[in-house]
Amino acid sequence: FLETKDGWGWMFPKFLNALFRGVGQVVFCNNPFTGLVILLALFWADLFVGLATTLAASTAIITAIIFRQDYAHINAGLTTYNAVLIGSVTSALWFPLYKIEINFLIWAFIVLGAALSVFVNTAMSNFLSSFKQPLPSLTFPFNIVALLLFTCLMPTPFPIVPNTSLNDTRTPGVAMELVARPVDPPMNNSLVRTTRGAEAADPTIVIPTDADIAKIYVPNDKDLHWGSTLLGMLLSMGQVYGVNNLIASMLMWMATLLYSPTLCMMSASGAILGTIFGLVFTEAGSYGAVYDGLWGFNGILSAAAIGGFFFAFTLHSFASALANVIFTVLIQHALAIAFGPLRLPFFTLPFVLSTFIFLQMSATGDNLVRVLNITSPE
Amino acid sequence: FLETKDGWGWMFPKFLNALFRGVGQVVFCNNPFTGLVILLALFWADLFVGLATTLAASTAIITAIIFRQDYAHINAGLTTYNAVLIGSVTSALWFPLYKIEINFLIWAFIVLGAALSVFVNTAMSNFLSSFKQPLPSLTFPFNIVALLLFTCLMPTPFPIVPNTSLNDTRTPGVAMELVARPVDPPMNNSLVRTTRGAEAADPTIVIPTDADIAKIYVPNDKDLHWGSTLLGMLLSMGQVYGVNNLIASMLMWMATLLYSPTLCMMSASGAILGTIFGLVFTEAGSYGAVYDGLWGFNGILSAAAIGGFFFAFTLHSFASALANVIFTVLIQHALAIAFGPLRLPFFTLPFVLSTFIFLQMSATGDNLVRVLNITSPE
Amino acid sequence: FLETKDGWGWMFPKFLNALFRGVGQVVFCNNPFTGLVILLALFWADLFVGLATTLAASTAIITAIIFRQDYAHINAGLTTYNAVLIGSVTSALWFPLYKIEINFLIWAFIVLGAALSVFVNTAMSNFLSSFKQPLPSLTFPFNIVALLLFTCLMPTPFPIVPNTSLNDTRTPGVAMELVARPVDPPMNNSLVRTTRGAEAADPTIVIPTDADIAKIYVPNDKDLHWGSTLLGMLLSMGQVYGVNNLIASMLMWMATLLYSPTLCMMSASGAILGTIFGLVFTEAGSYGAVYDGLWGFNGILSAAAIGGFFFAFTLHSFASALANVIFTVLIQHALAIAFGPLRLPFFTLPFVLSTFIFLQMSATGDNLVRVLNITSPE
Repeated sequence: FLETKDGWGWMFPKFLNALFRGVGQVVFCNNPFTGLVILLALFWADLFVGLATTLAASTAIITAIIFRQDYAHINAGLTTYNAVLIGSVTSALWFPLYKIEINFLIWAFIVLGAALSVFVNTAMSNFLSSFKQPLPSLTFPFNIVALLLFTCLMPTPFPIVPNTSLNDTRTPGVAMELVARPVDPPMNNSLVRTTRGAEAADPTIVIPTDADIAKIYVPNDKDLHWGSTLLGMLLSMGQVYGVNNLIASMLMWMATLLYSPTLCMMSASGAILGTIFGLVFTEAGSYGAVYDGLWGFNGILSAAAIGGFFFAFTLHSFASALANVIFTVLIQHALAIAFGPLRLPFFTLPFVLSTFIFLQMSATGDNLVRVLNITSPE
Repeated sequence: FLETKDGWGWMFPKFLNALFRGVGQVVFCNNPFTGLVILLALFWADLFVGLATTLAASTAIITAIIFRQDYAHINAGLTTYNAVLIGSVTSALWFPLYKIEINFLIWAFIVLGAALSVFVNTAMSNFLSSFKQPLPSLTFPFNIVALLLFTCLMPTPFPIVPNTSLNDTRTPGVAMELVARPVDPPMNNSLVRTTRGAEAADPTIVIPTDADIAKIYVPNDKDLHWGSTLLGMLLSMGQVYGVNNLIASMLMWMATLLYSPTLCMMSASGAILGTIFGLVFTEAGSYGAVYDGLWGFNGILSAAAIGGFFFAFTLHSFASALANVIFTVLIQHALAIAFGPLRLPFFTLPFVLSTFIFLQMSATGDNLVRVLNITSPE
Repeated sequence: FLETKDGWGWMFPKFLNALFRGVGQVVFCNNPFTGLVILLALFWADLFVGLATTLAASTAIITAIIFRQDYAHINAGLTTYNAVLIGSVTSALWFPLYKIEINFLIWAFIVLGAALSVFVNTAMSNFLSSFKQPLPSLTFPFNIVALLLFTCLMPTPFPIVPNTSLNDTRTPGVAMELVARPVDPPMNNSLVRTTRGAEAADPTIVIPTDADIAKIYVPNDKDLHWGSTLLGMLLSMGQVYGVNNLIASMLMWMATLLYSPTLCMMSASGAILGTIFGLVFTEAGSYGAVYDGLWGFNGILSAAAIGGFFFAFTLHSFASALANVIFTVLIQHALAIAFGPLRLPFFTLPFVLSTFIFLQMSATGDNLVRVLNITSPE
């Protein structure tokens, strides 16, 4: 109802509304309260991540207003959700990935990237809607801008002389692991995380986590812990925003559940199938990526997009959503190998590319109905 | 006439019809008997390749029926020809390329890839038809799925620590050769192949082959044998399906000749021009790729697509087809260099990319007429 | 008025008209006299570059006539400007980049590439015009063909065994520098260039140049010389055509100024902003790329395309043009890192990709008006 109001007094609530909806749109929740809960979860996971997200989203809203984008889109958060990811993912991944503190330059580029994402988003939306079966821009603008920023800002000696940086990795598998697990925090960080998780989660879940962390640093123990795998599925939701924190992930799951049980169910299916299928590509003894939820976060988005958001939920679209998750995992593994030597994360590119393909699909029997007036699937 | 029949009794013939047409569609032959001959040729070349092809094509047909694709397309083999290539090329190239036996995992992924190729094919067909000059999906879906499968399944240590795998190559040229010739069989395999060829082909052709094989392992002899080059042009047809076998190739040439002399003539032009132009990029003394037909198979497809299948055959379209072959060879060499360090084959990607460009071409003088109701060019 | 004339007597003037307009179209100047001045500037910079440009453009015109392209397009130089760049950039960059003399093979491939660029240009124009907001092909065809040619023809041992070629580079920064500065001439060549510049430019500009060259070979001096940076902005115009020559660049600036002051002003803005923003990515002490104008030439094209050529000049389009330059620089730096190990130059790909995105943009407030009937902006 905020749209009917006008005047300076309503500026700030409108601004917050656009901000929160932008945060929620990342997981297909066009609702300010869901967005607020998720933003709080980001602040809980890491104060800096929360701040960076707010800063980036605000920059995007201001840029969109200056360049006179469609107000309905701004209010629905559709011009800002890419900037939300620029803020959260860059601030969350930068230190674990490159072991360099986030300095002023990185902050400046988060603001710049957020502003540019608005341009790229408008362009991509126009471009992708010109096909016979129009495509949404998903998080493609975020991926384009984030790949550019990470490539431009990463420590430059690395991609040129890979040997010097990789010399300290004893086995080839470890080198790849470093890249395939962009969010893997350093040892002390991991302990902090576990302790935090222990405060809230019930002990039956926490105990395997401790064992898990011990295992990562004890290479001889090669068994897969199903408890940790389950935990990885839960953590997947947080990884959509780049954070590796159980409480934050649980809050996000609850927020999506309250917004739409169908979407939440599809997201959970995606997380479960993505994580299990990801095990196929995981060598024994290096389950860190599985436990951290890195195989599930693209699955969540892929399943939710096909299974409930863009297609009406039917048995047929459910099956297509699962096929989309499988294809997403294949793309993710291929990208992890391709981007590995460049030390670039794959972000949500697997989800975007796979879902583009599946959104183009159609069937003669009218089994897949594109939802044109997109609301909550219920 | 099978389309008029209905009922369970006709299921199996219909299935075989779709299967054989799918095999034929790869070389633009929409005819079950051509497809049957080509499938038999694949079985002759290698029993496993034939089985893998049949398995993959059957999986695709079943997937297409479950997801209710257009029956006319299924019957014409248009939903399955990408799966045919997944089956034949994966099974034919896996061992020579990675020196790893095809295990259960590879078989499972052939089935999975065949099923996924149906989704990708539908999506690509819809997507590519939304341009002002609609594009066919060619073998693009096969290339996407095959690149994903090969990247995901290749022995993982390789792309991370290239030095250990390349240490045993004495000269830089050899390392590249290994990759640029994905179908190059190991020594003993080559001998088997030659022996087999000797049983059927007349001696004038076989003698240069023996010399050729001797030459590969005698680095001082750097002359090009024109007999072997001619043989390479013949072998190109088999290489479309990934097999390196003279009898199989001869059978395929005959099958296309019977289906349509024009198409066969264009294919031959493509093989000849592609092989000759490929010599420009071949260093003296390393003619293995030329003799194996690796420079010709993309040329066959490029020439046939532009010169007879999608455009009506005229002098103008003939010239465009030759230009397409030239451009295909350039892309092939660039891809061989780009994919080299990754140890990925380039499949039929050169043909697809080049032909996409040439299909978008038009001329003011109505010299190029797109054949909309595609049948045999005669 | 040449279009009204017909007959053999008018063939040659028509041919020259198409040739000169093609040279001018690269910097958005559809005017034969501007093109003539630029071509003379290329001859002045390097006789071979001028000859190669003329040869390539003539090949393209003849190819276009044989394949019956639209005569209006040929006359306006729209079918030839990509061939112009193939000729000038290949001949200008080949020796500095690969330290190999341009031999007969390279000349043959310049002719071949020029002919192929006509096909690719027609195809791309058709393809890119099928979107809801039609896109021009810009210099995308040139980039495609040039990347293919350079990849196919570069000395082959290099991309396979990078160590042997890079062993002689003492510091990692230098290796990258070599690639990021494709036009960096060898020492003696630099001296020639400076001497030539000294003959004509006034001493206040030349003196910093000498200091600059001294600096490149004195690694301890890490200060940025603003005079040299200003010189770099001027040199940017020549770098559009691949040449690194002050007189040639000054002639080109004058030619565009006479054609359209608005376009020239936008180009200058692009050169200035591109060069300054490029400094962010330049390490202290390695300002060679800045001084040579390598950060400005994509900026010139990006600013001119958005700020005056495709959009009507307004404050809004001016701001978008500057954002486009920023995005272009980001893409350029990312491409320099990505193409670095392959020793490929990035050509004008940053301009093309960034401008594609910004041309797709629109705003609800009608602030960006696509100029449909493109003429000089005045």
